[in-house]
Amino acid sequence: MTQTLSIAPLTQSAFASFGQVIEPDPATIRMINSGTTERYHALGRTEALGEGAQVVINLFRGQPRNFPYKIDMMERHPYGSQSFHPLNGRPWLVVVAKDQGGRPGRPHVFLASGDQGINYRANVWHHPLIALAETSDFLVVDRLGQEHNLEEYFYPAPFFIAEASI
Amino acid sequence: MTQTLSIAPLTQSAFASFGQVIEPDPATIRMINSGTTERYHALGRTEALGEGAQVVINLFRGQPRNFPYKIDMMERHPYGSQSFHPLNGRPWLVVVAKDQGGRPGRPHVFLASGDQGINYRANVWHHPLIALAETSDFLVVDRLGQEHNLEEYFYPAPFFIAEASI
Repeated sequence: MTQTLSIAPLTQSAFASFGQVIEPDPATIRMINSGTTERYHALGRTEALGEGAQVVINLFRGQPRNFPYKIDMMERHPYGSQSFHPLNGRPWLVVVAKDQGGRPGRPHVFLASGDQGINYRANVWHHPLIALAETSDFLVVDRLGQEHNLEEYFYPAPFFIAEASI
Repeated sequence: MTQTLSIAPLTQSAFASFGQVIEPDPATIRMINSGTTERYHALGRTEALGEGAQVVINLFRGQPRNFPYKIDMMERHPYGSQSFHPLNGRPWLVVVAKDQGGRPGRPHVFLASGDQGINYRANVWHHPLIALAETSDFLVVDRLGQEHNLEEYFYPAPFFIAEASI
């Protein structure tokens, strides 16, 4: 099995088992504010588990990665969802994996456009933020609470992303 | 009392009684992801009141407004916070009011930069989204639940914003 990962375009159907793609889906549109605003409704659904947990809004400023890029670890947040939305209009990479008996399987790599955000469901394995080309800001919506909400896994052999064609 | 409203720059201190300004405040910084990412932590704190309520992520696409712009109504959401973050990097207007016996008082108008978002606390009077110059997209984080979550108030005499200098 090659350790080089291919990159797929980010679509709702391809991403469905990991969470939601946050983009202006015409199926969700509602006209509001006397017709001056289109609301694309409930594109992402947050989760905040644990007594007294709350959902908070943060900014992440991520450095761009160099290629070939080595994927040697994944993480997950058992108590909450986590969303990322680009604020600089630049494409970025989303890397997730299905769970296989408590460990992440082979990573899936998606190229998100500069207009696409995502929301990872609670407990979905994902790689930390991968910005491309330049330092980039993202709006991040996730869960704040008392429980330890981070699990990390280090692969015995790394995977590689050869190049992000943007 | 003049019905023409002046415009103030959006700052955390000026906005504190209405909610939070979402911008990269150095006081909130945490280095994460092996030093590749700056997390500006918990800039906005969501509220979702009512049994089974949840926080959802939406996109709003707002038409630009023309000036002089008439402010003749305000609204509030008693069961939840609502945040707005610009995705197109363009300045926009934030209009809020203090509550005076169940009605909004005189509006306060803030000019937000294209890098500033805000989060209205639950039950804070505010005007619907005011985009400037061009149709603009915003990421909106608010509450989804069963209760009726919209209250509107129409002023007996309108206020005016003469011009948004951007």
